[in-house]
Amino acid sequence: MLTKSQLQRLRTLREKKHREALGLFVVEGDKVVGELLADGFPLVEIYATPGWSGGPAAGARGLRPVSVTAAEMARVSHYPTPSPVLAVGRIVRARPAPAKLARGLTLALDGVQDPGNVGTLLRVADWFALARVVLSPGCADLFHQRTIDASMGSFARVAVHTTALPELLESVPAGLPVLGCDLTGDDVHTLPPLGDAIIVIGAEGRGLSSDVAARLTRRVTIPRYGSAESLNAAVAAAIVCDQLRRSPA
Amino acid sequence: MLTKSQLQRLRTLREKKHREALGLFVVEGDKVVGELLADGFPLVEIYATPGWSGGPAAGARGLRPVSVTAAEMARVSHYPTPSPVLAVGRIVRARPAPAKLARGLTLALDGVQDPGNVGTLLRVADWFALARVVLSPGCADLFHQRTIDASMGSFARVAVHTTALPELLESVPAGLPVLGCDLTGDDVHTLPPLGDAIIVIGAEGRGLSSDVAARLTRRVTIPRYGSAESLNAAVAAAIVCDQLRRSPA
Repeated sequence: MLTKSQLQRLRTLREKKHREALGLFVVEGDKVVGELLADGFPLVEIYATPGWSGGPAAGARGLRPVSVTAAEMARVSHYPTPSPVLAVGRIVRARPAPAKLARGLTLALDGVQDPGNVGTLLRVADWFALARVVLSPGCADLFHQRTIDASMGSFARVAVHTTALPELLESVPAGLPVLGCDLTGDDVHTLPPLGDAIIVIGAEGRGLSSDVAARLTRRVTIPRYGSAESLNAAVAAAIVCDQLRRSPA
Repeated sequence: MLTKSQLQRLRTLREKKHREALGLFVVEGDKVVGELLADGFPLVEIYATPGWSGGPAAGARGLRPVSVTAAEMARVSHYPTPSPVLAVGRIVRARPAPAKLARGLTLALDGVQDPGNVGTLLRVADWFALARVVLSPGCADLFHQRTIDASMGSFARVAVHTTALPELLESVPAGLPVLGCDLTGDDVHTLPPLGDAIIVIGAEGRGLSSDVAARLTRRVTIPRYGSAESLNAAVAAAIVCDQLRRSPA
C-alpha cells in the first residue's frame, strides 16, 4: 500500500532535478532490478506487486519489498505496461583521479545527449572490458530509465564518472594516447592494440567540442565506403574498441 | 488549411495497418524531408507551415506544399515540438531476386523489432556501401517514423526489401557466403575481405531463428573481453561490415 506522498516522491524521481536533490533514482523492470540486486548495486527501496519472484534476492541484500497493487504500480510506472517491480537506488558518482586514467581503456563521451545511446555505449564498454566511462556534464543522465534500459544490465557493471572533459584531459598522465573519433583522422585500422588509452566520442551531429579536440593526441576515423554522413556514436565506439583489443596480426 | 478528413487521414498513417492499406506513410522533419526530396524519393504530398524554406526543392520535384498553420501541424504531428514540414510518401517494396544477391553485400535482419535499431542498421548499411538490406516480416516497419529518424537520411539511399528469410536463403546462388552473427562461431577477425556475401543479424535478446540458423554457411562471433551478454544489433553488424571491407593486411 502506497501513501500519497510515497507515490508523489516516486514520480518526481523521473526528473533529473529531483533525482539530484535527493541523491536517488528509480528503475523499473524485473530483469534490470534482478541484475542490480545480483551485482550488489546500492538499492535502498523496492516496490513489488504480489507476482514478483525476486523477494529472496532482495532479502539477501537486506531489502524488504513494499507490496503494492497492480493499480498502484500503474500509477508510478512510466511504462504503458507496468513491470512487477520498481526499485529506488542511490546515485553514486566519483571523479576519476587522473593517475587512474593511466591504467586500462577509458571511454569519454563528449555531450552524447540521447539516453539510449549512452546506455548502448555502456554496453559496448562492458563487452570490451573498458576500465571506466567518463561522461561530460552535457551527456544524457546516467540515471535516466532509458539509459539504464539500453545498457542491458551493463549499468551496474561499468564504472562511470561524470566530469568536465577538458580539465580531465588536461591532467592525464604524460604519454597516454588520447584518441578522438572523428570524420577525418588516421584510419582506425592502422592503430596497434592498446591496453591503456582514452577514446573520446563526440555528440551525434555536432562531433567533438573544440576544447576537447584541442587535447587529443590523435584523431582516428572509420573508413567510409558509402554515403552516410556519420555513424551512430555507439557503433563508432565499438569499432574503435574492437580494433584496440585485436591481437597483433 | 486542413480539412477534418485530411487531418484524420494523416493521423491514421501513424499506424502500420493504415499505411499498408493505403500504400502511404508520413514523415516529419525539415532535415529528413529535405533529404528525401534531394534523393528523389517518391513523395506525394507535402504539408508545411509558412516558415518552411523547402518550397523550391519541393517545386523541383513537382510538389506544391499545402500551407498549414502551426496549430494544425501540432494536431497532426507526433512530436511534442512539431516540425515545419510533414510529407506523405509512397510505400515501395520489392522482393530481391535470388540471382541479385550474388552481387555485393546484403544485410539480412531476422526479427529486429526496435525501429530505432532498424534505422541505425540502415545507416550502417549506407556507411559501408552494402548493396541491399532485407528485412524479415517480423522486423520493425521500415516506414515507422522512428526507423526513418534513426536512419539519419540513409532510409532514402539504401535498397530495402521485406521477405521471409528462410525461403530467400534457400535460393541463394551456390557458393555465396551466408554469415550469421552469433555468440558462438568463428572469430570475426579471421574473416577475409568479402565483396559478395549475406550477413544475417538476429533479434535482440532472441538471436537468430532456427530456420535461418540452419541455412548459414558460417557462424561468426565478435570476441568478448568483458561481461555484457550481447552487443546491440547495429553495433554487431557494423563490426562485421568493418571487417569485411578491410583491405588484406
